[in-house]
Amino acid sequence: MQNSNMGRTNVTVEPSLVVLRLNHRPIRDERVTTHLCMVARAFGADGVLIADTKADEQVKKMKELSLKWGGGFWVRDSVSSMEYIEQWHKQGGLVVHLTMYGEPLETALSEIYYQFHVKSRPLMVAVGASKVRPEVYRASDFNVSVRSQPHSEISALAVFIDKLMPFHNELSTRSQTLQLRARLREKGGISPR
Amino acid sequence: MQNSNMGRTNVTVEPSLVVLRLNHRPIRDERVTTHLCMVARAFGADGVLIADTKADEQVKKMKELSLKWGGGFWVRDSVSSMEYIEQWHKQGGLVVHLTMYGEPLETALSEIYYQFHVKSRPLMVAVGASKVRPEVYRASDFNVSVRSQPHSEISALAVFIDKLMPFHNELSTRSQTLQLRARLREKGGISPR
Repeated sequence: MQNSNMGRTNVTVEPSLVVLRLNHRPIRDERVTTHLCMVARAFGADGVLIADTKADEQVKKMKELSLKWGGGFWVRDSVSSMEYIEQWHKQGGLVVHLTMYGEPLETALSEIYYQFHVKSRPLMVAVGASKVRPEVYRASDFNVSVRSQPHSEISALAVFIDKLMPFHNELSTRSQTLQLRARLREKGGISPR
Repeated sequence: MQNSNMGRTNVTVEPSLVVLRLNHRPIRDERVTTHLCMVARAFGADGVLIADTKADEQVKKMKELSLKWGGGFWVRDSVSSMEYIEQWHKQGGLVVHLTMYGEPLETALSEIYYQFHVKSRPLMVAVGASKVRPEVYRASDFNVSVRSQPHSEISALAVFIDKLMPFHNELSTRSQTLQLRARLREKGGISPR
């Protein structure tokens, strides 16, 4: 069980932007979830939480990618989604759920922008694969739709982060900070996961 | 062979924005290419050309999606990529290849914007799956990178079109126009493909 963190609920809201991947279906969703993780990383999220299931493939691939391309990006699997959201809220975090049934991004963006950039609230972006449970809609501060036609959680996440952090400088300064943190963690013997 | 259009090269540059999907690998790329088609549709492209291979799955799925959600979006498979690009150029079209090895979108966008919106040049956006042949790089007017870190062709396409047509009104007016065109085509007995 060393490699498992099933049911992990002790969270500290330290990162500024994390992605919560809901309803990942092993095998069927492998490539889509991997693309989603790459988008999260390339557009400046700190890491991805994969809810309620193992995702060894993504944890491994993203570790390899970060070794090759830099940055301290992480993927954690088997997190308990509803408990994580609850903890996130308790610690002042904001939860935005991307869904085509939400309010248009155009109307929600300015308030999210304010909460994230001005109030400095850590942000969790939840994205589903298959149908998302009603609890997630209720537990989210915002249910937001990127365009009103069906497309992909990969593109929804990219466009959302791109609009929220348009001046994000492509992992440059931040990746250096994260690399530094990762080195410090290694020295301290703390696992980057 | 009724359902095949292998080697189709007689093109008329009528649509304003089409996506050329390169190197689609049947089975392996099914879901990624389907997501790509949905992005093309939701963000306002006219259709997707799938190069050099059959893609019955995408043709069928996108036809179903358009029936349910509206619009005259189309997918054509087995188009001969290099000949299509050549024809496109001959008829005044512009070709933008999205690749992480291209010049940053930030520096290329204004010129593409000018060619597309002011000069009204029809635009073909080429996106690869696996490695893209050097000929495509050479044949493209622009090789453009959306962010400098690896992510996904799905997100690259979404962010690119979103920046090029930021005020695109979500298929509303255009979808009506296209529906009308489709109905006229049906009356005339012309296949929407």
